[in-house]
Amino acid sequence: MTQNIYDNAEFFAGYSALLRSREGLAGAPEWPALRAMLPDLAGRKVVDLGCGFGWFCRFAREAGATSVLGLDVSKNMLARARETTADPAIAYRRADLETLDLPAAAFELVYSSLVLHYIVALPALLAAVHRTLVPGGRFVFSIEHPINTAPGDPKWVGDTWPIDRYFDEGPRTTDWLAKGVVKQHRTLATYFNALVATGFTVLRLEEWGPTDAQIAAHPEWAHERQRPPFLLVSAAR
Amino acid sequence: MTQNIYDNAEFFAGYSALLRSREGLAGAPEWPALRAMLPDLAGRKVVDLGCGFGWFCRFAREAGATSVLGLDVSKNMLARARETTADPAIAYRRADLETLDLPAAAFELVYSSLVLHYIVALPALLAAVHRTLVPGGRFVFSIEHPINTAPGDPKWVGDTWPIDRYFDEGPRTTDWLAKGVVKQHRTLATYFNALVATGFTVLRLEEWGPTDAQIAAHPEWAHERQRPPFLLVSAAR
Repeated sequence: MTQNIYDNAEFFAGYSALLRSREGLAGAPEWPALRAMLPDLAGRKVVDLGCGFGWFCRFAREAGATSVLGLDVSKNMLARARETTADPAIAYRRADLETLDLPAAAFELVYSSLVLHYIVALPALLAAVHRTLVPGGRFVFSIEHPINTAPGDPKWVGDTWPIDRYFDEGPRTTDWLAKGVVKQHRTLATYFNALVATGFTVLRLEEWGPTDAQIAAHPEWAHERQRPPFLLVSAAR
Repeated sequence: MTQNIYDNAEFFAGYSALLRSREGLAGAPEWPALRAMLPDLAGRKVVDLGCGFGWFCRFAREAGATSVLGLDVSKNMLARARETTADPAIAYRRADLETLDLPAAAFELVYSSLVLHYIVALPALLAAVHRTLVPGGRFVFSIEHPINTAPGDPKWVGDTWPIDRYFDEGPRTTDWLAKGVVKQHRTLATYFNALVATGFTVLRLEEWGPTDAQIAAHPEWAHERQRPPFLLVSAAR
């Protein structure tokens, strides 16, 4: 079973208080950039890996998806997600993304927001995603940028983000909302080459940073222009 | 005309003294990784953008290329390159990569080592590379990694490499071998998306760092494991 930090009471309380939890997609600063990388959802079957409170699943339905499957390992997240919709075309299911098993050629879009950097068995997950996509289907996901996950002691020093251990791939334990949250650091090239090795064609990369308009509305985001906090990827089977 | 720092006497003297100038490809630590990304050169026509002393042009001929064209803006570099070979299948020509003009569908491989981060008109250069490649031809190049070019004041602080200004694309003036060397910082995503927009499919990325064996032989390279100094790219037309 994958790390299930979202069912840690302290973490869940902290996570629930974040802007992106209270306001959903509109509270996630990288959402406009990620949304711009999505294919047309009308008439499509969609799966969301790590669906959390189900914000994206509900968005996908509003955008015309015929069915949406939201998967998450957290019972807390799934319970809250199920409370927010009576839409019979949205299904929520508990799943361990470390051992994902989905039917072949079942979806036109696999979506995942800020989840893959928790996964240990990334090649197996990519293979499962590739298998469950129809030919030409899309895999659109975001992760914490490797520049962000590399440091052994991640922190701002003035306006700079000091990097070390970039090539030292593996777990990084940080205290974020709760003690002992474990992320898996990989280089950007490792993510890219794993996608290609699985059979994907990478269509677009975005290293998200706030726009001038976003900084005007949220001056506290200005330092995110110094280094990319998120990496967004669009790939085609 | 592009910046021609290599014809600055102070820079040229310093560059000529570097390990990679004295020992050629064997003195460039990233060469084994870049070589592994090359297609089979036997029977191929090759062009080297920024050929310098011609080390790669001579390698390509030894690897079976039928003809090799080396282009460089530096008269100093071209003069030295011409002195090193009498091979009639290698041609050296002065060219400004900011306004490159090559015949259509003329080469199977376009190669470029540590040059593109000097180029201002990158989209125009990528279009010229795409045009001069045969369908299926390869573009293999290295650049200074954007993590390396981003900082306004690039330097090690202990074992960390502090990043800032990552999203602030444009010129960076550094003192390297001579005062006032100007590089163009772009994000990794900008390079990637420019390649895709030009019509390339990116096949592989490598963020080079020294191997354990290389560090054993050159302990002074150990800090290059903390952050990637170079980005290597293989793309297909």
